[in-house]
Amino acid sequence: MILKHINQIPVIAEAHGAKYAVLSPGSRVAPLTLAFTRYRKIECFTLSDERSAAFAALGMAEASNSPVVIACTSGTAASNYIPAVTEAYYRQIPMVILTADRPPEWIDQWDGQTIRQSNLYSNHIKRSFELPVDTSHEDAQWRSNRIINEAFIEAKKHPCGPVHVNIPLREPFYPEPGEKFVYEKNVRIIENSETIRAIPENTLIELHQKYKQGKKILILAGQSNINDETRKKLSDWAKEKNIPVITDIISNCYNVETGITKADIFLKTLKQSEYAKLNPDLIISFGKSIISKNTKLYLRKTVNKKQEHWYVGINEFLSDPLQNLTRTIDLEIDQFLAQTRDWESKDSKYLELWRAKEEKTERKLGKVLSEYKTYLNELLVSKAVFESLPENSKLHLANSMPVRWANFISGKGKNINVIANRGTSGIDGTISTASGHAIIEPARYNVILTGDLSFFYDRNSLWHNYGYKNLCIVIMNNHSGGIFGLIDGPSKQPENKEWFETRQMLTAKNIARDHKLQYFRCTRVEQLQEAKGLINTSVGRLIIEIFTEPEENKKVFKALFQ
Amino acid sequence: MILKHINQIPVIAEAHGAKYAVLSPGSRVAPLTLAFTRYRKIECFTLSDERSAAFAALGMAEASNSPVVIACTSGTAASNYIPAVTEAYYRQIPMVILTADRPPEWIDQWDGQTIRQSNLYSNHIKRSFELPVDTSHEDAQWRSNRIINEAFIEAKKHPCGPVHVNIPLREPFYPEPGEKFVYEKNVRIIENSETIRAIPENTLIELHQKYKQGKKILILAGQSNINDETRKKLSDWAKEKNIPVITDIISNCYNVETGITKADIFLKTLKQSEYAKLNPDLIISFGKSIISKNTKLYLRKTVNKKQEHWYVGINEFLSDPLQNLTRTIDLEIDQFLAQTRDWESKDSKYLELWRAKEEKTERKLGKVLSEYKTYLNELLVSKAVFESLPENSKLHLANSMPVRWANFISGKGKNINVIANRGTSGIDGTISTASGHAIIEPARYNVILTGDLSFFYDRNSLWHNYGYKNLCIVIMNNHSGGIFGLIDGPSKQPENKEWFETRQMLTAKNIARDHKLQYFRCTRVEQLQEAKGLINTSVGRLIIEIFTEPEENKKVFKALFQ
Repeated sequence: MILKHINQIPVIAEAHGAKYAVLSPGSRVAPLTLAFTRYRKIECFTLSDERSAAFAALGMAEASNSPVVIACTSGTAASNYIPAVTEAYYRQIPMVILTADRPPEWIDQWDGQTIRQSNLYSNHIKRSFELPVDTSHEDAQWRSNRIINEAFIEAKKHPCGPVHVNIPLREPFYPEPGEKFVYEKNVRIIENSETIRAIPENTLIELHQKYKQGKKILILAGQSNINDETRKKLSDWAKEKNIPVITDIISNCYNVETGITKADIFLKTLKQSEYAKLNPDLIISFGKSIISKNTKLYLRKTVNKKQEHWYVGINEFLSDPLQNLTRTIDLEIDQFLAQTRDWESKDSKYLELWRAKEEKTERKLGKVLSEYKTYLNELLVSKAVFESLPENSKLHLANSMPVRWANFISGKGKNINVIANRGTSGIDGTISTASGHAIIEPARYNVILTGDLSFFYDRNSLWHNYGYKNLCIVIMNNHSGGIFGLIDGPSKQPENKEWFETRQMLTAKNIARDHKLQYFRCTRVEQLQEAKGLINTSVGRLIIEIFTEPEENKKVFKALFQ
Repeated sequence: MILKHINQIPVIAEAHGAKYAVLSPGSRVAPLTLAFTRYRKIECFTLSDERSAAFAALGMAEASNSPVVIACTSGTAASNYIPAVTEAYYRQIPMVILTADRPPEWIDQWDGQTIRQSNLYSNHIKRSFELPVDTSHEDAQWRSNRIINEAFIEAKKHPCGPVHVNIPLREPFYPEPGEKFVYEKNVRIIENSETIRAIPENTLIELHQKYKQGKKILILAGQSNINDETRKKLSDWAKEKNIPVITDIISNCYNVETGITKADIFLKTLKQSEYAKLNPDLIISFGKSIISKNTKLYLRKTVNKKQEHWYVGINEFLSDPLQNLTRTIDLEIDQFLAQTRDWESKDSKYLELWRAKEEKTERKLGKVLSEYKTYLNELLVSKAVFESLPENSKLHLANSMPVRWANFISGKGKNINVIANRGTSGIDGTISTASGHAIIEPARYNVILTGDLSFFYDRNSLWHNYGYKNLCIVIMNNHSGGIFGLIDGPSKQPENKEWFETRQMLTAKNIARDHKLQYFRCTRVEQLQEAKGLINTSVGRLIIEIFTEPEENKKVFKALFQ
């Protein structure tokens, strides 16, 4: 039986810019599977592990900046989407989640794969809808059409995010023999015209006054997917005004001229006498999370009692990670830069202070790297990965230590795009997310830098039939959650090895074999050069597994902060 | 810093009968990890993938009939528990979920691993609590103590179920150097005396009257973990009264003398003329879900307009899977049997009708088995597994087809215990659940019968350091979700292979190697004998992978229903 209200979904999705759908197999979801796969204008993929499927879809949405559809069958299939949906919520990534459901009369009746799916994502979802189960009345059809339109509008409207549509379905699910499978010609599309925001004139004057009063101004960039044009605009703006831009690697602002990339290292060991000098009168922040704990801790210590901190961006909630926010400006950063382009330059002394720190730290970093080059360690590996990344590639960073090591290393240089699941900072979907990027952009090369735990946790990411040739997974295998050996608290507990680091003995060799990835095992520093060559090749599908010793990593980590 | 309100948790847990805790590694969860692992009276385990950890805990709770603790760090770690928590909710399995959380002031502040954890399990949880973050006031300490007591009482109180305690924690998490790690001596325990339920005299008389009026009475057993004593009681009760007991394999009622185990096969092809004869006047049901769709469909067709259907059991909600429930009796089945022991016998004709059907179907099954013995097929494999199961072992059945094949085969015979995640019927945690059983009961042998999708989906179940020697995993690998080839709807769609069956080419060989399991590959019928020997050995830790052809399975499936 062809379900009219289901078959219109891909039509509406396409009209709202959806390009990709990730479907997981199941019976109840069949009408959605048929509607999407037969509608040729949306590219469909199938992944069996829903946890991984949802993270792959997240990657596709991020890579394509389009609302990606995910659809699964009823029951805990839908629950397995939750980690990725939560990540999408905090990262403002557009996704439309279609969960097939049993009709409501069968909830709590001990029926198979039947759970309470309404509001399943309630804590971390932009909006939740439910399609009517009875659609014979024309008002129910009107409602279905409106809900699907609204779901896509909401997913794409800033701040973007995940939207859930629960879809109860009665049998039969399949077209009857001889029944023609049709898509309606005149499905109603409700278009949404998003408007441009701007700071009103009087507010702009007020802000300008405050800017003029500030002697020490800095920009703080949180995680962002800033495009080349805006990054250039930011770079010019800050350079002209002599304003330092404190960047994490995940801000993607690495080639900003006044960028400060090593704050995480030098702010940790800042002398008390330097505290006041570097402390700003005005912070202008944008983007989302900041990796550097040391930057956050330092900037929370407000020296100037009249300090201002403006956050530029559009959020669903008020975020105040430095504990000193004084104003939110509901605007995208590029628009802010455009409206404030004419503001005057500042004395360069303040920028020079930051630059001096940056340069000194770069030298220190070089020293540490040359001192610890006999044995493989994660700083050395991260450096090697950076050096061998081809221009215009994407670097995916797993949580816990890899993103931190990479943040120590990153500096000016190549044009790359950095991706990390820092919305929730979980270890559950890094490889899947990167796979999503790789699958839909065959011409773009992806390198993942991951620890062993993140890799094995998410190994089902490789369990599918898509043969992309643009993915290189670099695993730093220290056979444990190495971060717990690096931080003071757990490393001093006798339980550390068993209960925090949780030693695990897997290597990726057999997994590479199972999933038909090339495999390179690296156990000595001398092999790093070959590994770099492999990374730099920028075609293929391979795992480079580099074994490091937790003790060596610990030494290097300590040296960085001495 | 020792947190008094945290360190009392294992003490209270133990007092309420908790024996096991499954911890997943993390930083925020450290105070819980230390409190549990240093408290020697609760056995602790660590599994890194929280999805798998929670299912393992579910298995432990089921095996031990005790409230198992699971604890994880903040963020999506807690989200990964959701599938198992949902299963526990529908199966009424006691679990206490302790999720470490950031303090509330850091929610939505772009902080790492910080999500909205309060009420994260809201749709499928018996109760949700949150410990206070500030515990300096003595009333906060009193509240913490009360909440933990209540959590364990609730988890164990019938109907049992999962209970969530969210635990916001501020740093520091670790004892300071030289600080003595202590457990309070006089932690307050609030004991709960659960009372015994009974049917009041006047109700009993009323029920008895109705029972007397019924000529055709049957008992329908849903999923249960019935113990030997109650099963014996049920068997004697039904035999004495000439009452057929319709059982699924997951009811664990397979050795009941008047048991009917083949209803799923013969009710599908029942002649119209037989409908009325078998249809009961009174159904007495107990337990949870029923696998057999044919049994449910048949019993929903009520012939006698005055038919009664009593459900005996204690549930949180009213379940009416046959659509003809007339009464719920809030009582465990053994108590019901005791109170109605003296009720009179019925004429044996009705039982004989069912028995005739059962015997005829057994002969048919034997015929099908002997007809399709040239090539490996899943019916043959299921039969082989049954034949080789040692006495007193546990058989874990994966969802989708394995549980159905096993249900066709099962009959009277050995004393085994059958486990299946039929609360939500997901494919996400079968192997993990069985591992939970295996880990805590080293003397009890566990056999898993699974398809390839359920196995690979849950392969992280094997990713831990526990070397049990009592687990045999039998994988029926048809390289796909074979069920979609067996049912009419999808098998007739051109999309079937790619989008429903979702062909996947993995075998378990390398996974066995990675996780140090013995591996036996079976590709020919002649090897089944050897496989049976391996299963029957009842010690070890092995994977037997049996390759079957979807087309052959289809033929056998059809033959069963001809």
